[in-house]
Amino acid sequence: MKRSGICTLVTDFGWRDPYVGVMKGVILGRAPQARIVDLCHEIPPQDVASANFALMGSWSYFPPGTVHVVVVDPGVGSSRRILCAEAGGHVFLAPDNGVLSSIIDPSGAIHAVEDRSLYLCEDVSNTFHGRDIFAPVAARLVSGMPVEDVGSRVTDPTLIERPVPHATPDGGLVGEVIHVDAFGNLITNIRGPDALAMRERASVVFRGQDLGPPVDSYAAVEPGSPLAIVDSFGFLEVAVNRGSAALHFNASTGDPIRLQPKPKTS
Amino acid sequence: MKRSGICTLVTDFGWRDPYVGVMKGVILGRAPQARIVDLCHEIPPQDVASANFALMGSWSYFPPGTVHVVVVDPGVGSSRRILCAEAGGHVFLAPDNGVLSSIIDPSGAIHAVEDRSLYLCEDVSNTFHGRDIFAPVAARLVSGMPVEDVGSRVTDPTLIERPVPHATPDGGLVGEVIHVDAFGNLITNIRGPDALAMRERASVVFRGQDLGPPVDSYAAVEPGSPLAIVDSFGFLEVAVNRGSAALHFNASTGDPIRLQPKPKTS
Amino acid sequence: MKRSGICTLVTDFGWRDPYVGVMKGVILGRAPQARIVDLCHEIPPQDVASANFALMGSWSYFPPGTVHVVVVDPGVGSSRRILCAEAGGHVFLAPDNGVLSSIIDPSGAIHAVEDRSLYLCEDVSNTFHGRDIFAPVAARLVSGMPVEDVGSRVTDPTLIERPVPHATPDGGLVGEVIHVDAFGNLITNIRGPDALAMRERASVVFRGQDLGPPVDSYAAVEPGSPLAIVDSFGFLEVAVNRGSAALHFNASTGDPIRLQPKPKTS
Repeated sequence: MKRSGICTLVTDFGWRDPYVGVMKGVILGRAPQARIVDLCHEIPPQDVASANFALMGSWSYFPPGTVHVVVVDPGVGSSRRILCAEAGGHVFLAPDNGVLSSIIDPSGAIHAVEDRSLYLCEDVSNTFHGRDIFAPVAARLVSGMPVEDVGSRVTDPTLIERPVPHATPDGGLVGEVIHVDAFGNLITNIRGPDALAMRERASVVFRGQDLGPPVDSYAAVEPGSPLAIVDSFGFLEVAVNRGSAALHFNASTGDPIRLQPKPKTS
Repeated sequence: MKRSGICTLVTDFGWRDPYVGVMKGVILGRAPQARIVDLCHEIPPQDVASANFALMGSWSYFPPGTVHVVVVDPGVGSSRRILCAEAGGHVFLAPDNGVLSSIIDPSGAIHAVEDRSLYLCEDVSNTFHGRDIFAPVAARLVSGMPVEDVGSRVTDPTLIERPVPHATPDGGLVGEVIHVDAFGNLITNIRGPDALAMRERASVVFRGQDLGPPVDSYAAVEPGSPLAIVDSFGFLEVAVNRGSAALHFNASTGDPIRLQPKPKTS
Repeated sequence: MKRSGICTLVTDFGWRDPYVGVMKGVILGRAPQARIVDLCHEIPPQDVASANFALMGSWSYFPPGTVHVVVVDPGVGSSRRILCAEAGGHVFLAPDNGVLSSIIDPSGAIHAVEDRSLYLCEDVSNTFHGRDIFAPVAARLVSGMPVEDVGSRVTDPTLIERPVPHATPDGGLVGEVIHVDAFGNLITNIRGPDALAMRERASVVFRGQDLGPPVDSYAAVEPGSPLAIVDSFGFLEVAVNRGSAALHFNASTGDPIRLQPKPKTS
């Protein structure tokens, strides 16, 4: 696969320490042509599900042949594998902890990083594989190294299950909030098409409040008012026009949301 | 106008979500040569005046032909226009909400983004125009597309009024704090030359405390002491040497500041 | 010395203001080929020791000929010198306040930035030397300007002393926490080899708790349990597997740590 020269980074390193910068130094030392894009470095420490969510909505907006590196790695220094995978015309490099769930195909091209000659040095640390393994391998991948070259084929990658919405006896659907963004928008696990299919006959109910059917834009309601909308990544979202739904509802991840059929008028 | 290849970004997206990274993916996919510079992503949510202030003091330090993109956009999804403007040898792309006030000339080259073939796809989202409209249009602008090509001429851009200092009967001047930076420096709307012109005959008074005339450097007073100074962007600023004026004075945006004539000695 | 084209930045500017972006604009305007890497911008305001620590563990992971710029500068606008130094095949540009301690050799190639023709303009500000002096000089250094060209030789750079561990009468060693990272890991000033040399005969004691000898990886203890480990920068570190040692111990910089000899069994 031809490479775009772009390398994205998702980590839980934050910006307070120079860890991200050090990874970039190692990548640029080995692949001077690389263009590195920070996707997210404020994943809550070791929160694999959050990292999966961040990458899932982002990778496909980069040009084909982009290398996406995830270092959210509670198992660093243990015997957990590091995976290198091809999917959808992109390359992914991440610990084998489920962070690539729903992105990679378990029957696809997935290989374990095993060739120690790819590492930064013979004697790598047990605490900063981002610098010592991920960065030098990413540099080689950006430069065109085939994923098969990192090590043996893997057919049993770790996968994490996300909560899925379930139907209710009255023909409704119950999902939950899976992400709160920095604006306080509440992203749920109900797929946009499912929500829109029920638009005529169901209301969105959150925290006991009937928000009506999904609207077309934040501006469809008064400033300060809550609303439901299909967001730009294809999920049903609860928001407040020019405000924060997280504050408005005192809401957080895991809160249930309901698509509730309207009472039939006879 | 020849382009520098540089594209700056001002948003209120923050660093917690991958929204900024996704915009960069779209830009780099269409303009691989672009060099993208983060100017500020921590504008308070939907705070148009803050975004205006951040851009106003920054754009001219970039080389001519730089494209500056602002996505602070409380009206996303409504019928508000998106403007593309040339000013001072630079290109600006922003929602028509006043964020370009005092930068663009209303009688200059300002065009509304109307050509949907420039968008990411036919069916753009109503919630993430940064990705779906601003980023692909920015990529074209960085690559040299004339601003006229985006759509029809605009002669009535939205402008916001900033508070202006006013003279007092005794020959003084009263302004206010318009920005508190991360060091706790208090930037006011009194212009440096105005403050310096009164240096011999007036004191800076803030929160009832006489700071004397503006000094030449933070180090002109003892560590921990407050001072007035003309800052590097040309505004009168209240600061504390090696400290935070915001904490020292418990001050915030909107607080009045006074250039008070000294009593005449007879 | 040949240059890598890379320029790293360490500042205390934070991300809230466009100060970092403005510096990048000035650098890219003068050195369009520069690749700028953010090493750290969240150094506590004017904390020279923290900036020294961030740079010390990072610079050597960049390719030779990289220019490292530090703008943590409590003396901005005073008569403090700005230093340009070569060390270890890299170039450093920083205020003369000790921030380069333990990186540069006082008898090496160190020069004071004195040639005003290198500045942004004749009449530079007294408050933003990052933009007016550091950035334009950095651009020239990235483009290959020899360090000797900035001004006269300096043989007395300011150095700061870091606390060093001391031996105890019973053959132990007492050091202290010198940095708390964003994961809550506590980095101490005890060197890894010193800790490992005593591995067989001493325990790490922190806050009255015996952590045993240093382990090989975070995963060597149960999730939630504290441990001692030699970190990826070669220092003894106190951590909690999948948790925060800073929270676990309510610990902070300056807290003592002890390598305590085990009682002899007769």
